[in-house]
Amino acid sequence: MSEVGTRPVPPGLSEREVDRAIARLTEELGADKVLTDAATLREFRDPFQVTTSDEYSASAVVMPTTVEEIQAVVAVANETKVPLWTHSQGRNNGYGGPAPRVSGSIIVSLRNMNRVLEINEELGYAVVEPGVRWFDLYEAVKAGGHKLMVSIADLGWGSVMGNSLDNGATYMPYGVDQASWCGMEVVLPNGELMRTGMGAMPDNKAWHCYKRSLGPSADLLFTQSNYGIVTKMGYWLMPEPETYMPLWLRLWSDDDLAAATDVLRRLMLDDTLRMNPQIMSGTLLAAVLSNRQAWWDDPNTPIPADVLDRMARELQTGRWIMRFALYGDEAVVDHRFAKIKAAFEAAIPGCDMWGTKYAPDQIAEIPDPSERVQGGVPSLDLNAMTGWYGGENGGHIGFSPVLPMTGEDALRVRDVMRREMEAIGLDYMSALIPINARSMVHVTMVIFDTASVEQSEKAYAACRRAVVEAAKLGYGEYRAHLDFMDLAAEQYSFGDHAQRRFNETIKDALDPNGILSPGKQSIWPARMREQRASGNGAIS
Amino acid sequence: MSEVGTRPVPPGLSEREVDRAIARLTEELGADKVLTDAATLREFRDPFQVTTSDEYSASAVVMPTTVEEIQAVVAVANETKVPLWTHSQGRNNGYGGPAPRVSGSIIVSLRNMNRVLEINEELGYAVVEPGVRWFDLYEAVKAGGHKLMVSIADLGWGSVMGNSLDNGATYMPYGVDQASWCGMEVVLPNGELMRTGMGAMPDNKAWHCYKRSLGPSADLLFTQSNYGIVTKMGYWLMPEPETYMPLWLRLWSDDDLAAATDVLRRLMLDDTLRMNPQIMSGTLLAAVLSNRQAWWDDPNTPIPADVLDRMARELQTGRWIMRFALYGDEAVVDHRFAKIKAAFEAAIPGCDMWGTKYAPDQIAEIPDPSERVQGGVPSLDLNAMTGWYGGENGGHIGFSPVLPMTGEDALRVRDVMRREMEAIGLDYMSALIPINARSMVHVTMVIFDTASVEQSEKAYAACRRAVVEAAKLGYGEYRAHLDFMDLAAEQYSFGDHAQRRFNETIKDALDPNGILSPGKQSIWPARMREQRASGNGAIS
Repeated sequence: MSEVGTRPVPPGLSEREVDRAIARLTEELGADKVLTDAATLREFRDPFQVTTSDEYSASAVVMPTTVEEIQAVVAVANETKVPLWTHSQGRNNGYGGPAPRVSGSIIVSLRNMNRVLEINEELGYAVVEPGVRWFDLYEAVKAGGHKLMVSIADLGWGSVMGNSLDNGATYMPYGVDQASWCGMEVVLPNGELMRTGMGAMPDNKAWHCYKRSLGPSADLLFTQSNYGIVTKMGYWLMPEPETYMPLWLRLWSDDDLAAATDVLRRLMLDDTLRMNPQIMSGTLLAAVLSNRQAWWDDPNTPIPADVLDRMARELQTGRWIMRFALYGDEAVVDHRFAKIKAAFEAAIPGCDMWGTKYAPDQIAEIPDPSERVQGGVPSLDLNAMTGWYGGENGGHIGFSPVLPMTGEDALRVRDVMRREMEAIGLDYMSALIPINARSMVHVTMVIFDTASVEQSEKAYAACRRAVVEAAKLGYGEYRAHLDFMDLAAEQYSFGDHAQRRFNETIKDALDPNGILSPGKQSIWPARMREQRASGNGAIS
Repeated sequence: MSEVGTRPVPPGLSEREVDRAIARLTEELGADKVLTDAATLREFRDPFQVTTSDEYSASAVVMPTTVEEIQAVVAVANETKVPLWTHSQGRNNGYGGPAPRVSGSIIVSLRNMNRVLEINEELGYAVVEPGVRWFDLYEAVKAGGHKLMVSIADLGWGSVMGNSLDNGATYMPYGVDQASWCGMEVVLPNGELMRTGMGAMPDNKAWHCYKRSLGPSADLLFTQSNYGIVTKMGYWLMPEPETYMPLWLRLWSDDDLAAATDVLRRLMLDDTLRMNPQIMSGTLLAAVLSNRQAWWDDPNTPIPADVLDRMARELQTGRWIMRFALYGDEAVVDHRFAKIKAAFEAAIPGCDMWGTKYAPDQIAEIPDPSERVQGGVPSLDLNAMTGWYGGENGGHIGFSPVLPMTGEDALRVRDVMRREMEAIGLDYMSALIPINARSMVHVTMVIFDTASVEQSEKAYAACRRAVVEAAKLGYGEYRAHLDFMDLAAEQYSFGDHAQRRFNETIKDALDPNGILSPGKQSIWPARMREQRASGNGAIS
């Protein structure tokens, strides 16, 4: 633990060693790409970290713009043993943002390595560098006049590659199973440059068309890991459909979630619906549309059920509201719309379902940001929800277990999370995001006022309790915040933690100096393995 | 190289050491599960190996039936250093069948570990052991009365898991991107049992519903590799659609392949067609329907173009014939059929396209085996084609580069392969199998008479030449025969073979004794790395 205001130093290293690494990096990259000023270091911390904490702080930020510069950075790290922490854009908000797990790490920010290298209209893919944001890829597709659509995440500032490598959700048909990636280039911990899949053959024509390798396929080893720095990735683009039809399903009773989940599963299993919906609690949409104070004065007690019902009616959010969409020939869209509407209405009396058809060239003008997101048009509009507590100081933690897509599981996870949130006086707010026809991620939006030490501490503590409670019921996190990364991984204990030993065996073999993102999703290199015990609850 | 008739011994080991391993295995598993008789060892060789060769022969075959027995086998291998070679059913025909890369290896045949452990109708998946064949899973689904369909391979005797782990194709919608797997259990080289994905959490409910892990996802490391023995796998099952409609497209001119490929890509990219078609050369279907002698007397010269045209007409195969299918609500199937037919007819004057609609309960009675395969009903009917040369002694090598799905690439690979085949006097026969909307595998069926040493030698030599010629043009194998596994992998040389070093680094870390399937897809453990050089052309 470093004191507030001093330059943090990674465990086992001296300030002098860190200074030497920074000096060597400055030699290699030039001073303009190696940043150590206080403002920059603050910018690259978790934006939602309680303001009095200095944990998860970097000692420097390097901003390479070429593969060769990344290789030089990796060489310096191997030489000095100062660990690196890589992000693409670092918009991993709710999970730690751009900040490193180990204080004193040098952040490798790839924000400036942001070229769209190729858009192949015939085969429907782009090749991007790590810093390319949803905004950038969307603009490049439009600028090229391509009749292609990008499956995007909710906030346009995020990195295409960063989101993909963290298993993040996107919402169009290609987002199903997080499967838009195809073919990567990676700087390995030893500085070598590797290409995966068909790309391992020089000038192979199918690198971004076919996902597997001859021999084992390593691509998904680089998701949520610290085994390499991905420098290029193929991302599949969908041809513009004849018709895009964003849809809404509104539920008035809290327990309608169960029937809606079961109907949705059947519609996704039989391919009537192919995309990733988002089932939002009424509170979550209310946080975009209104201020909490308008509904409930007390920031320390959760909004009671009768007020939630009033909010649901007055804001027309319902207790749950699902956004989803159809894409395709108009005749098929019409058939499916009628089938979907009939299925929900038969199962859930009183629910509302509606939608509007658009041609692709109309999507950018749709007023509702959710409808634009599902149509591949990025913005930052949905960022407003973190103001629910604390206004401009509002922040959130994403607490995100995976569940099978059944109504029974949906209610069970809702109940666990609501209990934990209400126990600390917070509103239960969530978005259930199906990732495929069989599973969904229950993203609990733990929104709190980052200016309140007390509320922050309570929020993190509740998440830590929830990790353990959810695991007892058979649900594990799909992605974890820095603060409880170790605890979340700890729950994956089958075979006396066989998977962890497997991951660490690979880590030690690929990265013997333990320089790449130590602690990322609880994979610790040999020299820092004792840090794992320190991992639970350091933030508050 | 061992002499014909003697028990083969792996490099670096003595016959006594192999005997000791067999004795220890017999102690652990019982004599009935450890087979060393000549007939068994012959049965577990490549069925298409030229009859005078003794390469790729095992010293024993063990047939465990439980995870614990597999762990015991792995322990004996670590103790004695005698390498193992695992297969599920060993029906890897065209690529070496059940046979080991290193002669003297002990085959771990999982044919008898063949339980369907679970069928989940609600969530649409099965959990299978390695020995479960397409026949078995199909029967289990039917016996349970489940309204679910299994995406299967062409020959029903193959293992669900074995095909999946070798990146094999299946044809229904879930076969796209070889993506039917979800959640594995693996015995690692050190004997530990690991579960992947959500299964790494004890009793996690989403193990077979969600594909990723918290942290890196290791599943695809176990495809085409020698990093572990997979003992359980989830396999997704599709709900029966209202309508199944197998389709055929027949092309009369050899170069129509280009236009058909381009139209097909567009129809797959826009999701009008979601499954894996198979575009067969007329010769390939002719081999199922007729005898070569009926068309051409000389087994040493390829059938000339005018005779191919006559065959195409008389057998009604066309020069190319594509099998494919629609699945879904009848209204959607009707819309899509009309759209597909119009697209092909507009692009290819004179082509024929037709199809027949069936309800799911009619599929088992469809006379055409291709139409049954695409409907999930397994048989062995399509095995007849290897009789084209040599009758009952007919065999084949699968030579299978991956290409982007464009007409230009399809013709280029066709031309390379035809040149190589005709240069040795064989007919060019192939099946182009789209794996997704962007790529296809060009499976060249190199059919030859296994009783002819000369024809066998020529066939293998031609494949070795074709590996190099295809790579020069930017096409690599998706899967390789034992005989040219090393040569095929050699072509993946980006970064001075960075991928190979990466694979070997992982191999050495996970399997320091090098006991699991050494040489599989050219991944050699440290102690046998010098065997790689011996890998090219040993079979003839």
